[in-house]
Amino acid sequence: MNRYNSLIGLLILFFSCNFCFSQSSEELWLSYSQPLNNKLKETYTSKIKHIQIKTFSETGEIIKTELQMLATKMLDTSISFTSTTPQIIIAKIDNLDSKFKQKINSQSLVNNESFIIQTITVHQKDLLIITGKTDISLLYGTYCFIKQLQLHKDISSISITDSPKIQLRILNHWDNLDGTVERGYAGFSIWDWHLLPGFKKEIYYEYARANASIGINGTVLNNVNSNAYILTSPYLQKVKTLADIFRPYGIKVYLTARFSAPIELGKLPTADPLNEEVIQWWKSKISEIYKEIPDFGGFLIKANSEGQPGPNTYGRSHVEGANMLATLLEPYQGVVMWRAFVYSEQQSEDRAKQAFNEFAPFDGAFKENVLVQVKNGPIDFQPREPYHPLFGAMPKTSLMMEFQITQEYLGQGSHLVFLPKLYEEVLSTDTYAKGKGSTIAKIIDGELYQDHRITGMAGVANIGTETNWTGHPFAQANWYGFGRQAWDPTTSAESIAKEWLSMTFTTDSLFIQQMTPLLINSREAVVNYMTPLGLHHIMNAEHHYGPGPWIANMSRPDWNSIYYHRADSLGLGFDRTQTGSNALEQYPKEIQEQFSNIHTIPEAYLLWFYHVPWDFKMKNGHTLWYTMAWYYQQGVNEVKNMQQTWEHMQPYVNNDIYQDTRMLLEIQYSEAQWWRNACLLYFQQFAKMPLPEFIPEIPHTLDYYKALKFPYAPGIHPSWN
Amino acid sequence: MNRYNSLIGLLILFFSCNFCFSQSSEELWLSYSQPLNNKLKETYTSKIKHIQIKTFSETGEIIKTELQMLATKMLDTSISFTSTTPQIIIAKIDNLDSKFKQKINSQSLVNNESFIIQTITVHQKDLLIITGKTDISLLYGTYCFIKQLQLHKDISSISITDSPKIQLRILNHWDNLDGTVERGYAGFSIWDWHLLPGFKKEIYYEYARANASIGINGTVLNNVNSNAYILTSPYLQKVKTLADIFRPYGIKVYLTARFSAPIELGKLPTADPLNEEVIQWWKSKISEIYKEIPDFGGFLIKANSEGQPGPNTYGRSHVEGANMLATLLEPYQGVVMWRAFVYSEQQSEDRAKQAFNEFAPFDGAFKENVLVQVKNGPIDFQPREPYHPLFGAMPKTSLMMEFQITQEYLGQGSHLVFLPKLYEEVLSTDTYAKGKGSTIAKIIDGELYQDHRITGMAGVANIGTETNWTGHPFAQANWYGFGRQAWDPTTSAESIAKEWLSMTFTTDSLFIQQMTPLLINSREAVVNYMTPLGLHHIMNAEHHYGPGPWIANMSRPDWNSIYYHRADSLGLGFDRTQTGSNALEQYPKEIQEQFSNIHTIPEAYLLWFYHVPWDFKMKNGHTLWYTMAWYYQQGVNEVKNMQQTWEHMQPYVNNDIYQDTRMLLEIQYSEAQWWRNACLLYFQQFAKMPLPEFIPEIPHTLDYYKALKFPYAPGIHPSWN
Repeated sequence: MNRYNSLIGLLILFFSCNFCFSQSSEELWLSYSQPLNNKLKETYTSKIKHIQIKTFSETGEIIKTELQMLATKMLDTSISFTSTTPQIIIAKIDNLDSKFKQKINSQSLVNNESFIIQTITVHQKDLLIITGKTDISLLYGTYCFIKQLQLHKDISSISITDSPKIQLRILNHWDNLDGTVERGYAGFSIWDWHLLPGFKKEIYYEYARANASIGINGTVLNNVNSNAYILTSPYLQKVKTLADIFRPYGIKVYLTARFSAPIELGKLPTADPLNEEVIQWWKSKISEIYKEIPDFGGFLIKANSEGQPGPNTYGRSHVEGANMLATLLEPYQGVVMWRAFVYSEQQSEDRAKQAFNEFAPFDGAFKENVLVQVKNGPIDFQPREPYHPLFGAMPKTSLMMEFQITQEYLGQGSHLVFLPKLYEEVLSTDTYAKGKGSTIAKIIDGELYQDHRITGMAGVANIGTETNWTGHPFAQANWYGFGRQAWDPTTSAESIAKEWLSMTFTTDSLFIQQMTPLLINSREAVVNYMTPLGLHHIMNAEHHYGPGPWIANMSRPDWNSIYYHRADSLGLGFDRTQTGSNALEQYPKEIQEQFSNIHTIPEAYLLWFYHVPWDFKMKNGHTLWYTMAWYYQQGVNEVKNMQQTWEHMQPYVNNDIYQDTRMLLEIQYSEAQWWRNACLLYFQQFAKMPLPEFIPEIPHTLDYYKALKFPYAPGIHPSWN
Repeated sequence: MNRYNSLIGLLILFFSCNFCFSQSSEELWLSYSQPLNNKLKETYTSKIKHIQIKTFSETGEIIKTELQMLATKMLDTSISFTSTTPQIIIAKIDNLDSKFKQKINSQSLVNNESFIIQTITVHQKDLLIITGKTDISLLYGTYCFIKQLQLHKDISSISITDSPKIQLRILNHWDNLDGTVERGYAGFSIWDWHLLPGFKKEIYYEYARANASIGINGTVLNNVNSNAYILTSPYLQKVKTLADIFRPYGIKVYLTARFSAPIELGKLPTADPLNEEVIQWWKSKISEIYKEIPDFGGFLIKANSEGQPGPNTYGRSHVEGANMLATLLEPYQGVVMWRAFVYSEQQSEDRAKQAFNEFAPFDGAFKENVLVQVKNGPIDFQPREPYHPLFGAMPKTSLMMEFQITQEYLGQGSHLVFLPKLYEEVLSTDTYAKGKGSTIAKIIDGELYQDHRITGMAGVANIGTETNWTGHPFAQANWYGFGRQAWDPTTSAESIAKEWLSMTFTTDSLFIQQMTPLLINSREAVVNYMTPLGLHHIMNAEHHYGPGPWIANMSRPDWNSIYYHRADSLGLGFDRTQTGSNALEQYPKEIQEQFSNIHTIPEAYLLWFYHVPWDFKMKNGHTLWYTMAWYYQQGVNEVKNMQQTWEHMQPYVNNDIYQDTRMLLEIQYSEAQWWRNACLLYFQQFAKMPLPEFIPEIPHTLDYYKALKFPYAPGIHPSWN
């Protein structure tokens, strides 16, 4: 059998309706192709026939095109854009006729991206208004309106007011100039730097469209492990071309700035941020950038971390480095996003503590247009980490969240893991910074510290050249979910799952009821089969593909698995209490109180904070060893459950997506077993206890697992080493 | 404006017909979406309603699917596959009813890939038979039949017998295991080695389909600059998966074999081809391969060339190396394709002579299952080269042609160059090997030497992850054309151009009449604006992007441009006559006679064979300098003409393809000027003559052009250096 044969079925389906589209994975959640019953189709059709768009901008053209696509693909009709007796008016609030405007609560337009969708009655007839202060707000309102149709909502008396809670909602592309993507598992970079600026690929427009539809308003085009070459004049012409394409979609471009660029490009002897020539070089470069890109967003900088240059090289602090650039960007309203992901090989201090120690004392010292960009946890995007203790510890600094959407440590290209569940866990965590209820969401959206001028959330993109953008069809949900949570960090993972499933596949309740829990539970599954009970960073070295709890030969102690799990004959886990590194002291007292007792700490964080005896009695009455094995097996079982659920989903999704997901779940199941087997065999050397009876016979020896090598695993390239 | 807006137009088009498809660049020449008038649609529909496919193989399923796609997409109908009163019967000759069989000239089925499409009359009714000896021949017959419909041919009394003239019609993928493609300008490798064997991408099936449709029956999956890792057991499982997918499409897989694999994988101290342990290692590896892939095609080997290991390292000859592997492959009917592309840095001999000197003496020494794979010219895939003198010089050896489909030296990803015109020039060249008319086509298809057991043609693929496969929409024509000329090396470039244009876009004669000459002339254009009059290899170093006649600092003399053009105050060009390297002596006397006189040699090869004074009087009465400038300008003008023609093609092609091609032609025009300007300024230093009046003012200095750097040009990667 081959996959083409399935086309026959598809084509026959084509014939069974006059004009219907299949779900298209290229079009993400915007294919407008879910099944729709005739009644609803008629209702919707009757309400959107005549639309007036009162703006003559490029954004207005985009709105028009999007609505026409919706009408054509979802409703099999076309819209007339007219100013006579429209059913819908899309206009900036200032352009609305006063008779309409007075029926709208324009006070609720709290910022330039807020919008109102409201049905008003004029001469006994319904009129739907989509309005806001700017063209972009109209675009956001339009996508929100379209979503109501995608979700099959009643639009007869619609009334929605919405506004992003976070200002900078940004994708970070770890894309290199040679087209490779660090930690990319969806092919290669979508930026064709070589053919830019002359060749404007369609994918650039599609990318902007997809992001605009979920409210993402910024993109850092290149890798944080940066290459100064992006700042040369020919490359700035390429960047300008992208910026021009993205602008009408409300998306600003940002670049990473290699701190040593004044040496590499400017041929200066130093990159000392206090050196006048260095400052002049940056000033002139920034002036050049803004001449080409007047709304350039600013710089993202990884400094003095993992070999990147930075101000410390010249005896200067992160503050001095960040503020130098921020001062130069200020006249242009540009920002500096300065990453807090720093840890030093010179330090013997617990890596989990270093960023806090380095940055917390700087609170209040950064300029107002500096955001300190902090990863969600203190190590590095693990399946589960406690939250980063900097959240709540820098009240006078704009802290920006950095989530990873690409699944570096979470199964990479082949595991179905719904990340909004992870983001939700982090965002809803209470830091007690201003008493109970001081969630991380409230810190990064500015609610807790009203004087923060700028708020932001970054997601390391999972986008590549794969036809469906993200490789795994379900990884699209993580891009979507990041956008939704960046718009409103209190958005629940469950509501995102339902929305994304409905918009991408079908609103059929049988499908949604089965698939929502599959998505929601998928994150706990990966924790269980990779790193249960607070284990972390025991992946293979460098490419981080597959288990590697035995990794012990990397050049830096904190690049080795044994640094993190500390297995020995006594037990397992990293003592981060007072008897150990005392990383716990970086957290607020409410958390310290709960976590400093091995019997009250949530077991999910047990091995993160404690070195626990193998025979420690867990809450379930069994030993640590037995319980850990139970979780590994539970993770495997959960993937099996996902497979079984998926088998019943064939009627709801197109055959390509069905087959792709089926094959990928098979790989995930096999790799979950690999994780369980390799980790249990490895840790058993120390625990010296038999495998519990529920663990199936392991087909290989530990040496077999240790010998597996993957020199061409994606996301890392020999040239970067 | 943005490109989405064009979708509205497209969607409106959708509505204007009941069910029609746009041209889809993903589907290559197989979209079955050209406009078709109603009369022809009715005629075709009436003739293909009922088809009997008398084979129950996977290939039979593919035939069925393909015909159903044709019916659905081109004719808006569906086929019933039936054994009662079929209008078409597709069956192997042995499975045909004898009453039908007797009306078919089965003698004309000269090999297992031959097919017959013939209308016979049974009970006064027409019956169309598609037959051959094998399932694959039926697939080829089906694609040929489908092509008649795509070309809007009259099929009422169709009678076609066809057969490939060359046995091995093979794509060479220079794809690395990390996903990069050496000399790839269409994205990255389509082989997702990491997710194989578990994840069978749809593109693998689409790739097989496209190749089968043009008769390509083999694919070398990995780079000739080889990595032994492909021969490890886990990778062979991945290769097996691809082989299983490709098999029902008649495509065999081949691999490149790194000659030092016994050292790298087998941990042997040597890779000496006469060493017993080495032989045993290969024997065992080959046995392992055939256990997984019973119809594995064999090995392609680049040995002792550009740093690749080979038998010379151990004092053994190419014959000893090739025959060792051929002996081991023989029991499995596997072949060795041994590349003749060798030149040594130890030799001071003209690089153009070295392959001939090395291989010609071995004529008759290779085993029968060895093919010596020879590039079309003696240097390296230049816009124009004289033919490789080995053709005609090794009558007792199977010589396989190696063409490059990817445009390493011909504008890479952004230049429209129709290569079948180049291939035609080579294939129709007379070698006089057995008297006048001994064309290269007759050498490689075996006509000239009937005792050659195996014949073959290889093309270095231009395929990558770009949505349209080849990056430039018109580069698809080069893949298509290679397939057609590998099937029959006497196929004219013009007929290929017309076929491809018709199948891909429209049969509209206004379109075909304008676009055919554009394609045909495009090859001479690139010769003119890059390397007129026999100039060669004056591209930039390493990535070969853009002009670099000044390149002089590469580690090997023959990697420098100055080695090839030899410009000095006296003149320009490489003296390869008796007074110089005498490469001319490697050619037959008929050619020597014509070429050894500077006044009778075709001017297209002048600077390849002569160092010509700047003021040499050319046939046009002007000096060399003036004439060379004229050709450079002519090349630029030709690109301008292509642009002007293309502007009128908008009604015939879909908007994406129109816009993409328009932007790419703009780049090509700009780069043609770059070539002209940089080369004329450079050579003017030696010629010391003014630029002719027809050359527009050059906006930059020579230093400007020399300073341009492209460290991230595609197709080459730092890690390979």
